[in-house]
Amino acid sequence: MTGPVPVNFGIVVFPGFAALDAFGPLDALNALSHMFPLNLYIVAATLDPVSTKAPHTPASRSDFAQSINPTHTFGSVPPLEVLLVPGGLGAVAPEIQSAIDFVAKVHPSLKYLFTVCNGAGIAARAGVLDGKRATTNKMWWSHETGQRPQVKWVSHARWVVDGNIWTTSGVSAGLDGIFAFIAAVYGEEAAEKISNILEYERHKDASWDPYAELYGLRDAGLLEVVDDGPRK
Amino acid sequence: MTGPVPVNFGIVVFPGFAALDAFGPLDALNALSHMFPLNLYIVAATLDPVSTKAPHTPASRSDFAQSINPTHTFGSVPPLEVLLVPGGLGAVAPEIQSAIDFVAKVHPSLKYLFTVCNGAGIAARAGVLDGKRATTNKMWWSHETGQRPQVKWVSHARWVVDGNIWTTSGVSAGLDGIFAFIAAVYGEEAAEKISNILEYERHKDASWDPYAELYGLRDAGLLEVVDDGPRK
Repeated sequence: MTGPVPVNFGIVVFPGFAALDAFGPLDALNALSHMFPLNLYIVAATLDPVSTKAPHTPASRSDFAQSINPTHTFGSVPPLEVLLVPGGLGAVAPEIQSAIDFVAKVHPSLKYLFTVCNGAGIAARAGVLDGKRATTNKMWWSHETGQRPQVKWVSHARWVVDGNIWTTSGVSAGLDGIFAFIAAVYGEEAAEKISNILEYERHKDASWDPYAELYGLRDAGLLEVVDDGPRK
Repeated sequence: MTGPVPVNFGIVVFPGFAALDAFGPLDALNALSHMFPLNLYIVAATLDPVSTKAPHTPASRSDFAQSINPTHTFGSVPPLEVLLVPGGLGAVAPEIQSAIDFVAKVHPSLKYLFTVCNGAGIAARAGVLDGKRATTNKMWWSHETGQRPQVKWVSHARWVVDGNIWTTSGVSAGLDGIFAFIAAVYGEEAAEKISNILEYERHKDASWDPYAELYGLRDAGLLEVVDDGPRK
């Protein structure tokens, strides 16, 4: 921890965002906001409620969704220090382009970018992961990583940190990632306190990832793992 | 599994509900709704957006909250088969009385009641846990359990099932509880598939509870544990 810790957080939301991608990290940050001064801006294309139901989903026998309310649009949000980007089925819908454009626009001014699940695919398509090590969810691995081969995709990882960019694996990995982020930026004491408040048993090892194997990424994954050492 | 599985779910929300209490279980159910026909009714005192910010909280240096949108009021919601009750700081605010009254009213017609964290305190004050084994979050144990000594509070438990009532420990315990619920009601195959989609490593042992010890409930807890065997 050097210098002042970040105060101003934003989260991008879009139709078909995954609820736990967003609210896992957010609830840890809700608790952190009782310890440190923090502001949250919920950012979307418009101020209309944003549903977890993805556009263009096939007819369903279910009517099961939740909606949250943006506080700002992509055009009106104040300067941010940390931007959270969740994933979900909507992250691969055409409507996601405005979120991709927003991530590309604000990235240079961010202290940290933090993605969950295939939110990494949004950041990747914004071009901000090019040449960086990053991970994404394991069930949709081939689709997500195939969209942007310029990224040094790391298949066996609960989360990956490259410079100021944090990417986590699928859905609940956002919880482990945000605790690691809180520990790194606000201190381990805060992270431990919050995990005890949430009664959440953290995975503290960024390389813990049974899902890479579950989804058959064992061999491909090892080939895709990169390191920073000399390689010729 | 006997007879048709539940279709109609409700969740009670109130100002100061804990985000992960609600959205952990809900996101598992979002995934379940792609496998089984499920409907969700989000129920509150009014149709106004409901914030995670609790009423009557002291002045804060932070402005960090999320709000979701009810679909029905306590007076307008259709018949429910499963009711989810999250907790949070707002569960102990005076405004919670209408939620308590709602739980008391609908409980007799439910197939299942499922509480997270101190949502159990809401159910307890509604009187529906009297004489039942139940658990709640561990950090606020004394306060929550002291409100309703007629409940057979179980201190060392990730979750507790008594008849058709499921109660879980604090916040993230709702995830383990909902997976156990899905396994019991919709089948283990669905629970395992969803946990793999969410990349969530379930605690499958309902007695796993390091937080009871962390919060000093070891001795009191053992005294408070009850069983169903003969005792005289």
